[in-house]
Amino acid sequence: MQPHESARGPHVLRQINSRAVLRAVRERSPARVADLMQATGLSRPAVTRAVAELRDAGLVADVDETAQVSMGRPAQWIRFRAEAGYVVGVDVGSHKVVAMVADLAGTVVASRQMATGERLLQSVRDTIAEALAKADLTGEDVWAIVVGTPGIVEESSGEVLLAPGIPGLAHLPVLDELRTITPSPVLIENDINLAVLGERWCGAAVGSDSLVFVHWGVRIGAGIIIDGKPYRGANGAAGEIGFVDVFSGLDGPDPAPLLGARAANAVSEKGAFEHAVGAQTIADLAHAAEALAPSPDAVAAVFAAATEGDPAALEVVDRIAARFARGLAALLLILDPREVIIGGGLSRAGETLLAAIDRHLRPRILTSPRLVLSDLGSDAVALGAVRRALDHAEQRLP
Amino acid sequence: MQPHESARGPHVLRQINSRAVLRAVRERSPARVADLMQATGLSRPAVTRAVAELRDAGLVADVDETAQVSMGRPAQWIRFRAEAGYVVGVDVGSHKVVAMVADLAGTVVASRQMATGERLLQSVRDTIAEALAKADLTGEDVWAIVVGTPGIVEESSGEVLLAPGIPGLAHLPVLDELRTITPSPVLIENDINLAVLGERWCGAAVGSDSLVFVHWGVRIGAGIIIDGKPYRGANGAAGEIGFVDVFSGLDGPDPAPLLGARAANAVSEKGAFEHAVGAQTIADLAHAAEALAPSPDAVAAVFAAATEGDPAALEVVDRIAARFARGLAALLLILDPREVIIGGGLSRAGETLLAAIDRHLRPRILTSPRLVLSDLGSDAVALGAVRRALDHAEQRLP
Repeated sequence: MQPHESARGPHVLRQINSRAVLRAVRERSPARVADLMQATGLSRPAVTRAVAELRDAGLVADVDETAQVSMGRPAQWIRFRAEAGYVVGVDVGSHKVVAMVADLAGTVVASRQMATGERLLQSVRDTIAEALAKADLTGEDVWAIVVGTPGIVEESSGEVLLAPGIPGLAHLPVLDELRTITPSPVLIENDINLAVLGERWCGAAVGSDSLVFVHWGVRIGAGIIIDGKPYRGANGAAGEIGFVDVFSGLDGPDPAPLLGARAANAVSEKGAFEHAVGAQTIADLAHAAEALAPSPDAVAAVFAAATEGDPAALEVVDRIAARFARGLAALLLILDPREVIIGGGLSRAGETLLAAIDRHLRPRILTSPRLVLSDLGSDAVALGAVRRALDHAEQRLP
Repeated sequence: MQPHESARGPHVLRQINSRAVLRAVRERSPARVADLMQATGLSRPAVTRAVAELRDAGLVADVDETAQVSMGRPAQWIRFRAEAGYVVGVDVGSHKVVAMVADLAGTVVASRQMATGERLLQSVRDTIAEALAKADLTGEDVWAIVVGTPGIVEESSGEVLLAPGIPGLAHLPVLDELRTITPSPVLIENDINLAVLGERWCGAAVGSDSLVFVHWGVRIGAGIIIDGKPYRGANGAAGEIGFVDVFSGLDGPDPAPLLGARAANAVSEKGAFEHAVGAQTIADLAHAAEALAPSPDAVAAVFAAATEGDPAALEVVDRIAARFARGLAALLLILDPREVIIGGGLSRAGETLLAAIDRHLRPRILTSPRLVLSDLGSDAVALGAVRRALDHAEQRLP
């Protein structure tokens, strides 16, 4: 520090410089000092000082392999130490828990999946612990954990308010329990809101600023990206299209109250849209149409038969696609997104289903969004949780 | 300017000071120099200089009335010259055009309404010209004009892409025509997107950051505010719930294509939701239920009878409210807004209808948004256009 600089000035300036140099290293890793000078516009002494500080902080390191340059003065190559910290992304489903461990560059270094045991929170803890152990890490190495669960999550408290998909989850002290794993932040978020982040990060719509991800599995819900950011709604309950009632005729009776039933957390009944296009309904339609023999996975069987051109199976797929398109049309008329991803278990049915949805959807909407299938499949939630945890971990960088 | 100040520094600084002082005057108008010093943190010389500059620019003036203080040195009161500029907000409907002229403080100084003539653009021009004449102004006094129309408006070009409500409007050179009125900017926007701005400015949900305005008239559509800003969708087509099909039974046929028919601009057929709860449907239901004698305004008559407790009329209102609630529920499940305003002609039916909607809505949604009727009624679009024009005009202030 030079004697005439004010007490505060150089510190703040050095932090700004360190941040700029770190960003440049991460984007290029590895990089030479000259690259970093060009990228940041800083002088050689400023870059050298920032690199020294980042090296002391364990965030960058010299690359050994380039030290063997034989002629002249070897260039100093600097790399980002992605192993300086780790994050964990967790997907808590009704039947299984998935935990992924990733380094600060977002590379997944370990993954673990377990069937959900009777004690849900213990299953979550165990899965995270085993994933960390597999990567030879402890809770001390973790900079952030993000957990995705079905249901409505209150952002401020992290409390799961409603979780119809997993009876018993609502109001469990999930965060308190998981905070014993690591001193770092633990966050909880709706799983489909994370899935859309995952697909936007490394899936079917990289970098999209206007995106809807529709999860079509046992349950149906949508994750929404507006202006590049997740849209959660005023109560964290945006995108709950599984409960949209698009099928009950002109003057049908009102349903039993959704809110009361769910708040009581006693039931896991499905919404109208979920019921109309759910796996059980598809299996029932397939059997009724004699499109397939009884099988352990009736849904997969009917889509397989349709792909092979079986007329009865094609008819079932077409009918289901028409119903799905009606609910999806409501979402698209209201949100007008640029891109739409269909994910969840049903999306595995593939292009035959997608083409049928597209055919029934187009007459019902006013715009022409790009409609694609999920790239990440069942990894979307855990990867989205990793992405969100990385965003949080960035706050610990200079 | 002091000789040792750099060429650029004092100019920029003075502009920043002028902006701060102007903002303080506008918030307090009238205000004393001491008030402005306190509000801005600037010195007396800096405030005095800024006031002098703003006075030269015609944006502030001394208040005459306070000059008559008899004892001691009278305080100098400064007011914002709201009459320094004017904006025009226009509502182009299928039957009438409304133009409102407001000063820079947002006070409406003149308003003019005309029936739409055969030559639509001429009607719009004439209405604006008459409103300006009424206020003794010319196009030179106007800082911005914003025109609201039904349909989907392309933000960049201002072109009306689809306008099913007003046959012949789509692809008319609206902006080219109106730009001959004034040298200032002319913008065009979907009318319901403006209505929600109006209600947020001075209507039923002042300052709300999470708001949906549902227009329920001959047509149905929604204006959406997310994070305090209008949400238009990727193609300016967000909120088109009039076309949501929530009524056609489980496996009904696909409708005729919306997009093709509308792009051809040949028809003005209604969307499924519009049809199910439109004025004609209400009148038909009322007659079928013998709830009222034939009348020129069957809709008003049935709501009036319901308010007086007529059982047959109450049943019609209840049935319509149940249908409306079903479509509204789709919107609320997807967007989860904090506040919902119901506007448009049907909202004039008042609390009897609102209570019935509320009753049928609650079982269908997962959250508890505040549900209210429009405050601004048929002025919402024109006032929203004024608000949008004011936002635009602000760019001309220092």
